[in-house]
Amino acid sequence: MEKTMDKIVALAKARGFVYPGSEIYGGLANTWDYGNLGVELKNNVKKAWWQKFIQENPYNVGVDCAILMNPQTWVASGHLGGFSDPLMDCKECHERFRADKLIEDYNQEKGIIIEGSVDAWSNEDMKKYIEEHNIVCPTCGKHNFTDIRQFNLMFKTFQGVTEDAKNVVYLRPETAQGIFVNFKNVQRTSRKKIPFGIGQIGKSFRNEITPGNFTFRTREFEQMELEFFCEPDTDLEWFAYWRQFCIDWLKSLGMKDEEIRVRDHDAAELSFYSKATTDIEFLFPFGWGELWGIADRTDYDLTQHQNVSKEDMSYYDDEKKLRYIPYVVEPSLGADRVVLAFLCAAYDEEEIEEGDIRTVLHFHPALAPVKIGVLPLSKKLSEPAEKIYMELCKTYNCEFDDRGNIGKRYRRQDEIGTPFCITYDFESETDGAVTVRDRDTMQQERIKIEDLKTYFENKFKF
Amino acid sequence: MEKTMDKIVALAKARGFVYPGSEIYGGLANTWDYGNLGVELKNNVKKAWWQKFIQENPYNVGVDCAILMNPQTWVASGHLGGFSDPLMDCKECHERFRADKLIEDYNQEKGIIIEGSVDAWSNEDMKKYIEEHNIVCPTCGKHNFTDIRQFNLMFKTFQGVTEDAKNVVYLRPETAQGIFVNFKNVQRTSRKKIPFGIGQIGKSFRNEITPGNFTFRTREFEQMELEFFCEPDTDLEWFAYWRQFCIDWLKSLGMKDEEIRVRDHDAAELSFYSKATTDIEFLFPFGWGELWGIADRTDYDLTQHQNVSKEDMSYYDDEKKLRYIPYVVEPSLGADRVVLAFLCAAYDEEEIEEGDIRTVLHFHPALAPVKIGVLPLSKKLSEPAEKIYMELCKTYNCEFDDRGNIGKRYRRQDEIGTPFCITYDFESETDGAVTVRDRDTMQQERIKIEDLKTYFENKFKF
Repeated sequence: MEKTMDKIVALAKARGFVYPGSEIYGGLANTWDYGNLGVELKNNVKKAWWQKFIQENPYNVGVDCAILMNPQTWVASGHLGGFSDPLMDCKECHERFRADKLIEDYNQEKGIIIEGSVDAWSNEDMKKYIEEHNIVCPTCGKHNFTDIRQFNLMFKTFQGVTEDAKNVVYLRPETAQGIFVNFKNVQRTSRKKIPFGIGQIGKSFRNEITPGNFTFRTREFEQMELEFFCEPDTDLEWFAYWRQFCIDWLKSLGMKDEEIRVRDHDAAELSFYSKATTDIEFLFPFGWGELWGIADRTDYDLTQHQNVSKEDMSYYDDEKKLRYIPYVVEPSLGADRVVLAFLCAAYDEEEIEEGDIRTVLHFHPALAPVKIGVLPLSKKLSEPAEKIYMELCKTYNCEFDDRGNIGKRYRRQDEIGTPFCITYDFESETDGAVTVRDRDTMQQERIKIEDLKTYFENKFKF
Repeated sequence: MEKTMDKIVALAKARGFVYPGSEIYGGLANTWDYGNLGVELKNNVKKAWWQKFIQENPYNVGVDCAILMNPQTWVASGHLGGFSDPLMDCKECHERFRADKLIEDYNQEKGIIIEGSVDAWSNEDMKKYIEEHNIVCPTCGKHNFTDIRQFNLMFKTFQGVTEDAKNVVYLRPETAQGIFVNFKNVQRTSRKKIPFGIGQIGKSFRNEITPGNFTFRTREFEQMELEFFCEPDTDLEWFAYWRQFCIDWLKSLGMKDEEIRVRDHDAAELSFYSKATTDIEFLFPFGWGELWGIADRTDYDLTQHQNVSKEDMSYYDDEKKLRYIPYVVEPSLGADRVVLAFLCAAYDEEEIEEGDIRTVLHFHPALAPVKIGVLPLSKKLSEPAEKIYMELCKTYNCEFDDRGNIGKRYRRQDEIGTPFCITYDFESETDGAVTVRDRDTMQQERIKIEDLKTYFENKFKF
């Protein structure tokens, strides 16, 4: 079977994972709403991140910072000055393009392989390349472009009554800066000693020119970021530690080796302040796409904030009697992207018997939106089955379904990735037991109702 | 002891519950960041809401919709036309005020009791009242105001490259509309029959003129909203059901009768489309403040969206053979407000012995940011104690602390509301047991290490 985005988008909409945003009004650019199953899947992914990166990790604590920040933050971070896309217009048809994307698409089409990323080129270099290769407008086919100019990607709004410059604020383009500006606060209140990390899950906004590929690139998106603070010269060790930690996290949730690619940036691709950067990429149906960026950001961020705010950002190690600005290792994961990756990875069409195909989502049980489907064999058995459902709901997100024949109901649960189905049948009343069916093996076992709690206890761990 | 906001704000900052937003840059209006304990407290509150309103409730499912929505949404909801504050300027000192707040403050100061809320008055009525009572500017003391004009409370931004009218989008002022526009999608994908509800937790934004009272009123805030869809003429029954459900939820998490007030709106105070509305208020140190609004919104919202979008919003009941636009009951809770309420409710200063006062946060164990503190009696015992800590971390958010004398460590855990402390002492090695101390009673019991898992199993339920 071929795993295509079309199939996945269709299933997502049909089963309540993801709908187009504002759909009754014809949508709004590339916005998406998580439906009744999507919200559970996404919450489970966020919970799994929080559990391993914050709760169980002895080094790290969490924060939850405001989306609206003092604009000086973006002066220090460089987002006001440098966070921009290189845009140019076609003078013939007046369409607008990202110059770097135009070059990348051209190279891909022609099979030209260049070193490093076009991202890092200057406007002049890009313009020259477009001239030399006579790259044409994808819309009208002409070659007649304006100069390239930079367009800032931050969403701007006004806080307060008047729309003037002093009231301009920005929607944060990343969650990281909320962590940096609170570095001293968190260090003081958590009483952590270096090395330690601060994690955050939250929405960020980037006014992308070309959002797309379903939920892969959206203007509004959610991040799961960790900023790990360490002593200078220990940064590369910690970089290696977190790089591996991230890979392990993905694999512990069921991602396979052949779906993941780890791409270390070479010197030409690195930001000027970064000593090492790695992208963990996932093989989407539309190709390899970045999930996780892990970067050794040195002391760049804290130094910048110290320079702009004039607040001391140093840390004093009272055992070593050493004062320094900590180095930072940042593993930054897109929540929507990794949710999409788990959805794509889970999707399968299996031929069970000749010509009988089932669609099934092989989610890791920890991520499955519905953990247990409770199905009375007949509507007559709904009442005792509902009792089991109500009891299990206290611990797990469950679904009760008494509509249609049992085979169809199993298939429906397969399609939404429910790892276990409980069937209450006519013998259940007498033997006090139910049938538990496994989504992946389709095997069934008979389990005493009173043992269900114990039976499921370790099924959803990871 | 007197419970004041000053004390609570100071503790919140000192212990990592809430810091001023962008503090190193002098802050940004009334924005706040949740620190290492605050994020856990807030997450626990959100989890507790989701568990009772979505997971365990057989009627309801959840969604997670985009903050940026098609602007037609706000035409239909009335926010573009009518969601505004009545503002006026003092002509003498040029300060700007909300006319309704000016009247309310004046009435409170003078002990004047009026029927209903000033909210519902027209601009003319407010202006007349200010004239007649000769209300003066709180800043300069003069009585010389401009006319009152309406100021829209939605944050405006631009999506795409150009800042022109066709690219204007708004940050949602409430999560409810994401639910309404998806009513048909969710009904179809969840296969729910009426009555059923859709819940959502997420950020909303209102450009308030006078934010304040710590995290009580902020421009960026988080909501936990349920929209419950029912058959016309069953709405008042469901209204009563959810009204009670909300009260029960607060009480199950430890809120006391005397801290909660339930205020039913009288006819004059009701919105024109509402058949019944109730505010659940909490007694903050600064006075009674609204936590939860429960409103019978009739078929107003779905009808509005049907009219503007031209999409059919009706529901067909195939048992009764009846087609109708569902009625809606909406319990809408401010997450930041209820977190603040739980923090205020928990705060206590207890005189244990003559002159010995401990500060303690009596959080319900389900809400406590740290569930268990693990404290080795001496640094020499850190290693075996840390083993217990690592094991318990898999299930609970725990803290390990081996610094300072044990009495001080207990007090510190009291101050952050940790319900249980485990002390590993010099006998633990031989008897395989630890001391478990209860935050509220300060009683200690000896528990076998192997029994800890069972001991804690039911301690955090609610």
